[in-house]
Amino acid sequence: MALNEALSALESLLGDRLSRAPGDCDQHGRNETWFPFSPPDAVAYPETTQEVSDLVKICAAHGVAITPWGTGTSLEGHAVPLQGGISLDLSRMNRVLEVLDSDMQVRVQPGVTREALNEDLRATGLFFPVDPGANASLGGMAATRASGTTTVRYGSMRDNVAALEVVLADGRIIRTGSRAKKSAAGYDLTALMVGSEGTLGIITELTLRLHGQPEAISSAVCAFDTLEAAVETVQLTIQMGIPMARIEFVDALTAEIFNEANGTDFPHKPHLMIEFHGSDAAVAEASERFGEVVADMGGADFQWATTTEDRNKLWRMRHGAYPASIAHRPGCMGLVTDICVPISRLAEAVAEMTAEIAAAKLIGPIVGHVGDGNFHSVMLLDPDDKDEFKRAKSVAGKMAKRSLEMGGTVTGEHGIGMGKIGYMRDEHGAGWDVMGTLKAALDPQNILNPGKLVEQKP
Amino acid sequence: MALNEALSALESLLGDRLSRAPGDCDQHGRNETWFPFSPPDAVAYPETTQEVSDLVKICAAHGVAITPWGTGTSLEGHAVPLQGGISLDLSRMNRVLEVLDSDMQVRVQPGVTREALNEDLRATGLFFPVDPGANASLGGMAATRASGTTTVRYGSMRDNVAALEVVLADGRIIRTGSRAKKSAAGYDLTALMVGSEGTLGIITELTLRLHGQPEAISSAVCAFDTLEAAVETVQLTIQMGIPMARIEFVDALTAEIFNEANGTDFPHKPHLMIEFHGSDAAVAEASERFGEVVADMGGADFQWATTTEDRNKLWRMRHGAYPASIAHRPGCMGLVTDICVPISRLAEAVAEMTAEIAAAKLIGPIVGHVGDGNFHSVMLLDPDDKDEFKRAKSVAGKMAKRSLEMGGTVTGEHGIGMGKIGYMRDEHGAGWDVMGTLKAALDPQNILNPGKLVEQKP
Repeated sequence: MALNEALSALESLLGDRLSRAPGDCDQHGRNETWFPFSPPDAVAYPETTQEVSDLVKICAAHGVAITPWGTGTSLEGHAVPLQGGISLDLSRMNRVLEVLDSDMQVRVQPGVTREALNEDLRATGLFFPVDPGANASLGGMAATRASGTTTVRYGSMRDNVAALEVVLADGRIIRTGSRAKKSAAGYDLTALMVGSEGTLGIITELTLRLHGQPEAISSAVCAFDTLEAAVETVQLTIQMGIPMARIEFVDALTAEIFNEANGTDFPHKPHLMIEFHGSDAAVAEASERFGEVVADMGGADFQWATTTEDRNKLWRMRHGAYPASIAHRPGCMGLVTDICVPISRLAEAVAEMTAEIAAAKLIGPIVGHVGDGNFHSVMLLDPDDKDEFKRAKSVAGKMAKRSLEMGGTVTGEHGIGMGKIGYMRDEHGAGWDVMGTLKAALDPQNILNPGKLVEQKP
Repeated sequence: MALNEALSALESLLGDRLSRAPGDCDQHGRNETWFPFSPPDAVAYPETTQEVSDLVKICAAHGVAITPWGTGTSLEGHAVPLQGGISLDLSRMNRVLEVLDSDMQVRVQPGVTREALNEDLRATGLFFPVDPGANASLGGMAATRASGTTTVRYGSMRDNVAALEVVLADGRIIRTGSRAKKSAAGYDLTALMVGSEGTLGIITELTLRLHGQPEAISSAVCAFDTLEAAVETVQLTIQMGIPMARIEFVDALTAEIFNEANGTDFPHKPHLMIEFHGSDAAVAEASERFGEVVADMGGADFQWATTTEDRNKLWRMRHGAYPASIAHRPGCMGLVTDICVPISRLAEAVAEMTAEIAAAKLIGPIVGHVGDGNFHSVMLLDPDDKDEFKRAKSVAGKMAKRSLEMGGTVTGEHGIGMGKIGYMRDEHGAGWDVMGTLKAALDPQNILNPGKLVEQKP
């Protein structure tokens, strides 16, 4: 009853931008990986902050769940409406509101994607650096504290969100942060909202930090005989203070997958993909010093991407690693790990992961943002093979535990969602209870993205 | 009664490390600026996290207030025990616990000061960059989200705290964050605690990020005819992407105060103080490009500090600006503003502040971390002149309002404490209520640093 009353009030609010069409509901009940299908009762397409606020007030009055949806590219089921209710699709709030070029900031609505933003910024000399593989929405990226290949240089969403507008669980609209470069004015509500996965509020506007398009860029790929040599090259490069914009590891199987998907001919060996940004002189100096480290570590097959086109091809290939991996085993589904360990433990962690995957007789290419200590195994699973799924979950669980023992985290960038909720107690101990207390204080009815991140009380 | 019972239990716990000596209580009731004297009933000197936890449990059981104390260098009365109770002096928890050099991190107790830490790190090739003027404790710096002259390059405490151990208001001990370089594992409790000013928990251990001691350093001072020319030089330098490690503005009066305190002979003009860090080549390139900008803007009297000794003298002078300003007017007390505006509004904001101080017939030298858009006027007040104090408060209030109108914040780095609580509603609107909700959820008895940061309910 409550649901029907809410839906009827929402129809009055949104007209045909409240959809109960099975196609819409189906699409918003699916996910990119292995989580079960769970459709919402309706999909809402608000166009303004005020509409989001009004919608939340209606849902709050009737106790109806709201699950925000950006582009649906989460790998942890963040946008799956576990309890039905409303899927809040923010894709129509997709305007770049204001480019503040002399402050190197931009105000955007949450549905703007990172690629659309950078397209929009092209002529300004500025760019937004955070790049998870997918062309995700910036609201979703903030909500999941996303990062990517350039985080080693430019930081993650934690570092690149200056201010937010957020609709709370009771419909109040707040603004967090400011346009100043720093502030000591009270609790850091921006940081609290970034990574809260839609469980504390709905992001309706973001002020993002921009960076100058580098004067010079230089990218390269090189091969190593062993994963240890590749990873130790990363550790050495960091210790020497060589300023990298990107440093990515791909294992031998991924090199093979790249060849399949892109027609390249990389040797079947572990590789590093690297990029330097800066002045001509700085980039030349960094490239030279990095080349020396690689040579010392026995790296070879150095390929420099000198043109913009070659560079774009290189990083498109890297960003396409997930779909290319899925395509490597037709009909498979992916289970992706995301541990992030202290740099000093990285070689050990990647080697253990490789050994665990082999021991479990799984296919699991490994790629990683190794400059941050973060890497993924993409386990390619037959959806009908329950034992294979169990073995993959076991490998993921073992490696999550190992990451914590090494002082790391169970998720560097994909977030908790549904997939990693079982690791939260191990990672945070009583800190997880604190998260539950904060959630209960700000969303006492548990209507915002229920079933995610915090402990689920019966 | 409750208080006496608590004190007697605390005496059993801490022995003579619970002091009721008037000298101790007096010292912990004072502050660096103009806030009234308000002593605690006792001062506690815990030596372990477990003692802090036990102490908090005793105070919670008896409803006794706890105000953490680092070194007492706050400019906003953070450590003043407004409701008496316990001043929790963390100065005996002053051990550097573990230098994790290959991860460029260090674990410290909260009472370690920033200078002691850097002394300890000297031989490692690493350093901790955040430098508020005073030799503050790292726990206090985290609790107030401190920053300083190097924030333009290395960030503030927000960016340099990787993990914390915190004792909550009920005595529970939690660990936030991890040793990984990034994480997407749930709410960012580290960021919530950093800047919470002891109102949500007591920091008992910190894992800090370190940086490599730069291969080359180059520092300089140069003079400008007008403050506009100096500030526009900063804006241009940022826009050109010249990588600065420090860029500080001092006005003509501060140059005069430097001469008084240090026997220097700077012209009575606005100055910029700048520093570059990097490889020899990078520093040379940055210095040259900066020199060109300065020449274009009519800057002159360029003095390069080439030796370590000269550099240290330069930055000691800058860090000593507050006491030197106080000494400029013997017997005065300071009222320090701390607004931080978007870089695009900086010249305007500094000019308005200068005009307001002149119009109010006050003595108020201006210094600032202008690369961040943050600057201070140090208004030097006769403690017996009530009208002068009123005029200074009025200038501070006007400029806080102007900062918000410009998209800035009322405090870039000094925090809220007692001094800026009156601006919180203007800056945060309903966001301030959210802070109150979080405070009530984590400290329902309001025993942790009561009277600070959040709205005080009657």
